This record gives sequence, C-alpha cells and structure tokens, in this order.
Amino acid sequence: MRARRSLIDLDDLSGDELNDILDRAADFEDTEPAPLLKGVATVNLFFEQSTRTFASFNFAELRLGAHVVNLTPGDMSLATKGETIEDTALTLAAMGVRVLVVRHPEVGFAQRVAQAFDGHVVNAGDGAHAHPTQGLLDVFTLREEFGSLEGRTIAFVGDILHSRVAHSTIAGLQRLGAKIVLVGPEVFLPSEYAKPGIALERDFDAVLPAVDAIVLLRIQRERFAAMPLSDAEYVARYQLNAARVARLHERTIVMHPGPYNRGMELDDTVLEFAGWRYAKQVRNGVFVRMAVLDFLVNGSP
Amino acid sequence: MRARRSLIDLDDLSGDELNDILDRAADFEDTEPAPLLKGVATVNLFFEQSTRTFASFNFAELRLGAHVVNLTPGDMSLATKGETIEDTALTLAAMGVRVLVVRHPEVGFAQRVAQAFDGHVVNAGDGAHAHPTQGLLDVFTLREEFGSLEGRTIAFVGDILHSRVAHSTIAGLQRLGAKIVLVGPEVFLPSEYAKPGIALERDFDAVLPAVDAIVLLRIQRERFAAMPLSDAEYVARYQLNAARVARLHERTIVMHPGPYNRGMELDDTVLEFAGWRYAKQVRNGVFVRMAVLDFLVNGSP
Amino acid sequence: MRARRSLIDLDDLSGDELNDILDRAADFEDTEPAPLLKGVATVNLFFEQSTRTFASFNFAELRLGAHVVNLTPGDMSLATKGETIEDTALTLAAMGVRVLVVRHPEVGFAQRVAQAFDGHVVNAGDGAHAHPTQGLLDVFTLREEFGSLEGRTIAFVGDILHSRVAHSTIAGLQRLGAKIVLVGPEVFLPSEYAKPGIALERDFDAVLPAVDAIVLLRIQRERFAAMPLSDAEYVARYQLNAARVARLHERTIVMHPGPYNRGMELDDTVLEFAGWRYAKQVRNGVFVRMAVLDFLVNGSP
Repeated sequence: MRARRSLIDLDDLSGDELNDILDRAADFEDTEPAPLLKGVATVNLFFEQSTRTFASFNFAELRLGAHVVNLTPGDMSLATKGETIEDTALTLAAMGVRVLVVRHPEVGFAQRVAQAFDGHVVNAGDGAHAHPTQGLLDVFTLREEFGSLEGRTIAFVGDILHSRVAHSTIAGLQRLGAKIVLVGPEVFLPSEYAKPGIALERDFDAVLPAVDAIVLLRIQRERFAAMPLSDAEYVARYQLNAARVARLHERTIVMHPGPYNRGMELDDTVLEFAGWRYAKQVRNGVFVRMAVLDFLVNGSP
Repeated sequence: MRARRSLIDLDDLSGDELNDILDRAADFEDTEPAPLLKGVATVNLFFEQSTRTFASFNFAELRLGAHVVNLTPGDMSLATKGETIEDTALTLAAMGVRVLVVRHPEVGFAQRVAQAFDGHVVNAGDGAHAHPTQGLLDVFTLREEFGSLEGRTIAFVGDILHSRVAHSTIAGLQRLGAKIVLVGPEVFLPSEYAKPGIALERDFDAVLPAVDAIVLLRIQRERFAAMPLSDAEYVARYQLNAARVARLHERTIVMHPGPYNRGMELDDTVLEFAGWRYAKQVRNGVFVRMAVLDFLVNGSP
Repeated sequence: MRARRSLIDLDDLSGDELNDILDRAADFEDTEPAPLLKGVATVNLFFEQSTRTFASFNFAELRLGAHVVNLTPGDMSLATKGETIEDTALTLAAMGVRVLVVRHPEVGFAQRVAQAFDGHVVNAGDGAHAHPTQGLLDVFTLREEFGSLEGRTIAFVGDILHSRVAHSTIAGLQRLGAKIVLVGPEVFLPSEYAKPGIALERDFDAVLPAVDAIVLLRIQRERFAAMPLSDAEYVARYQLNAARVARLHERTIVMHPGPYNRGMELDDTVLEFAGWRYAKQVRNGVFVRMAVLDFLVNGSP
C-alpha cells in the first residue's frame, strides 16, 4: 500500500487506508510521539476564520516536530497582488514546503491546490463540501466507543445540506459498515439524499430510541441571508433537549463538530448527558491530524 | 505550598508565592533555562492589539520549550460563529491546551476564562482591571534595585483610574511592604483611592525629592472620547521633564509600563536620566513571564 | 573582515562580503544546517502583506533554530497607541530580540529601524527602495548558472522605476562584474537611469538575442491610481511571449521576483521555457536568507 499524496475527502481513502490512519491515531493517543515530521516545512493556509481546526492542526504539527508557518487572510498577498492559488502553491513547493493544510470557503478549493502543489495537501474544509479530518475524528471517536462500526446506526441531525462535516463523516462511516440515518426538514435535507445505506427521516422523535449515536450539526446562520425556518420551529422539531435525551438508550452517544449553538440544536442538558462526547472528539482531533500528517508524509510503516 | 492554577491578579498571590515567582525570575535572568515547559500546549489568546506583551509572552514560552499557538482577533471564530468564550475555553482544554494567556478589553474576562478552563490561565490584561505580569516585572525591577522594598516609597503618576498596570503593581508592592503615593488630578485619581498605606497627592512637585521610585503612567487617549484635561495643563502639572528630573534624588529610579508618549507624561530628558529603567523593565518582563509559567505549570520546587 | 550589523541594501556589502554570503548559501543548499541561530530571538515585523518573503524568512529562521515571533499589522500596537518605530525597536531590543526582519511600504524605513535597534536588522523591502535578500537570491541563482558573472549581460524588463528588486539586484550584479541593460518605456525607465555599466534600451526585441539572462519585473498595478500605459501597449512592446522566447539564445535564462502576472509581463509559454528559473529563485531564497542571518549574527567563520 502506497500512501496517498493528499487528503481531500474521506471518499478518497480505501477501507485499509482509513483503518491505517485510525490505528496511527490510536498510537498517538497512547504514546509520546516521535518527531516524525522533524523539520518538515508545513504551511497552514487558512482563508476562513477558525479556532479549533487551526489550533488543532498547529499542535499536531508542532508535536511531530514540523516547522510551521501560518498564512491567514490578513497576511496574504493574494488579496492585493492577484496571484492565482495555483501559482502560490507552486511558489510554496519551490520554497521547500512539503505539507499544505488548506481551508477555504469555496467548494473544490483544496483539490485545485492539490493539483498544483508538488507535496501533500490536507483539506481543512472547503465550503460545504468536505472536512475529512473532522470526519476522521468522528469515525475515530465512534470506533473507540463501539469497537467495530459494522451494523451500528448513526443519525445526523440538522442542516445536512450545508455541512461539510456530514459529507465527510458519512463517507468514512459507510466504509466501515455503519448504517446512516439523516434527520432534518426538507429545506436542510432534500429527499434525493436517500441512497443505499442512507435512510431519511423527518421525525427526530421516531429515531431517538433506535440509534447508537447522534451527530448534531450546527445551524450555520452565516450561510443564509434569511433563515429558511424559524428558530422556534427548528427547536420544536429538531433540538436535542431534556425531553428527547430522556428517550435515548443509555449507551447512545451524542457528538457535535462544534461550535455548538446552545438553545438551538441542543440545550444545556445535552452538555451534562453521560453520552456527550464533544470533548473527546476535540481531543481525538489532534491525534487524528497527527496520523494524517504521518500517513501522508511517511507512508507505509 | 501548592502552586496556583491561574494568575488573574497580583492580589491572588500570598507574599510567599510572590517571592517564589520573583526568585524564579532571578534564576532565569542568571542562567540558561531548562525546557521546563517542553511540549506544553500553550495558546496566546489576544483580543486586543499588543506588541510588547504579546512578543514577551511568546519568547518566554519558546525559551521554555512550549508549543505555542497564537489566536488573535482576526483568526478567531468567535466573531462570526457566536461561540461563548467559556465554550472556546472548554474546547481548547479538550484539545490538550494546558496554558492560556488571555488579553481582552473587558474587565473580568480572564477570570471568566479561568472558571471555564481546565488548565492554567494567565491574565495578560483585562480592560482597566489588572495586568499581573506587568505588575510582577515592575516589582521585580524594584526588588533588584533596592533589595528589600520594606519602607520604600513608590509614586505612581498620571491616569491611575484607567491603569490596569497601577492596580496590579500596587497590590504586589504593598505585599512586600512598600509605601505608595498616587499622584494625579482628580479626574484620574478620585479621592476615595486613599487607603491605609496609600497616600494621595495632587502636587507632583511636592513628592519629587521624597520618593525612591516613580512609575509614570501612560495617558491612554484611546480610552477617552474627549480628553478630560488639556494636554498643556497635564504637561504643566504632571509631566516628568528636565526641571522636575533636576529635583529628584540621584538614586531615584523612574519606570514606565510603555508605550510612553514623548512630550506628554515625560519629555526626552527622562530617557537620558541615569535612573530611567524602562529597558530593564522590558528585559525583566521575559524572565518574570517565564517564572509565572513555570510556577503555574510545575508548582513547588 | 567584521560582519555587518544590518543588511539594508546590497550597496552596503563589499564584494568580499557578498561572496561570503553567497558561499554560505551554497553550503546551506548542500548540507543539513546546524542550528546556528539556536534560541536567537527573532521578530518578523511586516507592515505590508507578503506571502513568499514572509514564509521564506520564517522557514530560514526555523531551520537555523531561532525563536520566531511574527508581528503583522493587525497585531501591532503601533496603529492605535502612537508609539514611534524607534521606541518599538528599542523595546524589542530590551526584550532580548537580536534580529529584526522588517518590511514596510515607506522608503528608508528599515534604515530608521536599524539606527534605533541594538541588534541586526534585515530589510525585507522598503517601498520602491530596496529588497536586498531578493537581490541576493537573484545574484545567487545567476552565479549558480554561470559561475562567474564577469562580463555577463543581464536585462531587466519593465517597471524599473517602482521596483525595489531591480535596485537591489543591480547593485549586487555590478559588484560581481555583470553588465546591465534596462529595458522599458520612458514612463517606467527615465533616461537618467543610464550610468556607467548600465545601458538603456527602449526596444525589447533588439536585446533578445544578446543577453545571458532576463529579469522580468512585475507591473505593480497597486502602485498606480491609473496605469500610465495601456495593457495592450505594454504587452505588445514588452511582454515576453512565444514569439520573443523563440528569439532567445538557448542558454538564456529568465527570472522573475514573483508574483508574476500571466498575460501581462509574460505569457504561459515562458513558464514552459527551459530557461525559466522562477522555482529555483524561490528555492534559493531560503538558503540566501539563512546565509544572511548566519552572516549577521555569527560573523566571520
């Protein structure tokens, strides 16, 4: 098995590759990491604001001994000098940069960069398309919880349409044999999303007792000029709250990619629920990102 | 003695703790530091622009071997995604971050963060409230100068009301037995500031020959819509200038937290005065910040 | 030979010093660098947006083991607090900073900083004046190509008037015995630029077969309210394109400081031309910057 050059979406990975990355992440969780990226020139190229993904990649890189330079929109010559991203990628490769972590609001942006860049590209989010390391940390967290995901049912609730997280995580989960239920109103979940292995459900209450895990998605108000659904209506039908938590199986776990809107997709009782795994997801994010970097740069063990 | 979790204000520290930190700073000044924070994930979370405090913390952290990520307003998801600071703190702790250095224009902000964050918080300035590492470096500089501070008289001159530096430094100095004189006009120095061990004086000239040290405070124009006092009036009554320097005891020292306004709270003769200690303060700032980080993370020797 | 304290322009360097730096760069290209700046406190003070120069300096510093803090306009207290750059420089020196890399849109800015700063200043671009490390990497790239530059003819094409790159590179090339031809319209190339060893030529086509190397300069639209020449006219007379490439000697090399405007000063055939050296220039930039830092901080071997 030859390691891939870049990670744009979880779709790209075979089941073996996916398991290889998850196994590396487990090792990083258990043992002090060796400097596997010692002196590797790495650039985090973030065109969108981010706290958690930005910091998580930075710490993953630093723990592996990489040389890290952050380029954020305010620093970029792109804005004023009209250089194409392809030419920037070429320039950074020429400079000796071997890893580019890219976040951008435009779908397909990381792929464009990967085509131009002679090195490894990690997509850290491209619009509503994909966010594969978030997907991986979700899959990793679920695998830690359940061992095998074969036959497990995972529900995604909320704005599936605009969620790059959902797209990436679902790809990974299906690869490992999980069953997916998408839950949400028509406006966030078009009927054509139903596919083999992916059920659609408009009624959140109907699925509550039957699922092994729930992934709540953020209502990303910044993606709408006007919200297509009133807050009150969304809360009534889809908020995970005390009443709905009470109907969950005691071993159900609840996840969220963050940042979560208290009072919108969840209420504060969720944050106290025994199955709430947000902190574990964030913690695992660093290990999974270390694993991806090691997998891309160093290849097969 | 158990080390504290966080440093929000100098009031928090006992006399023993204060001396412990100052002793560590003296060690860092004298000897090449060991990597006492090797691999410790550290975030500098600066919501306000800063050159000296930002750079000083960064170098202190790097010299101790920490892994450092800077989050400044432009990078933050806070602005657009409506996450509370408490949730950001929880997220960073989950990510493995152990030290958060926080600057924010709002009084009490660092304390809020410390309540939510499962790790060490260092307040790097919260509005006009506190700036304990600046206070510590002032105290450290004075202790280096005078040995014991018992019975020494230190004057603070200028805008006491809006100075987080004055508040923090005074707390530390009193702990070590110094006498404080506050000097300024009513508008910057309300009469109720007089307390046991703290004298008030409207007439700068009256205190000049009697003090061991003068801490000049910056007139922070950005805190006023309109300055409550004309520049000419302030200069006439409170500027430390050639005429006033001539009346100082030759062993008096003069300090300033920076940045100073030439022509406002001081004139250029001060910068040539033998007792001017600004550069020493800045230099000591790195050692004091290393000491605080070591004290919080590693606790008692 | 005593090493210089700062590098403001290539004019500052003697031929021996220039060759010393180029020799160090060659060593850095060939061998894994020792941590020659281990723990040296370094600040990159960038008042202008930059991708390539900013990243290149960062990687050069990190590869030598320096402690690096980046201060970019958004982080600076300068904007709001009215501190002079001289006082900022004094403060950073007091903090223990030994190297300041400075970029600013104002001519002479780095020189002002160097006068105030008790340490090493590297000019990373001051308006249209100088950009000595870009000049050095151009010279280094040409020296690698040709061995000796004695008697070689190098053409600079385009907006000489606003190019800090041209000024710096030409100074270095003349020091090493190269002949210079400046090519461009009157508006970018005043007649008084002709000097001993520097020829002026309005007709690009006339010089094509005769030169050893061509340095294309970027049309920096951001420097003009209105372009003083139509795009079509510029392209017709001065664009390096398929027709002109065909007339070059096969061993001619073509360089560009980047970022280049495809369709303006060059067309895409140039990017495929065997003599196109842009990637080599960028790669050499890191080695040359390491060499400058080592030369300034560590002095003579």
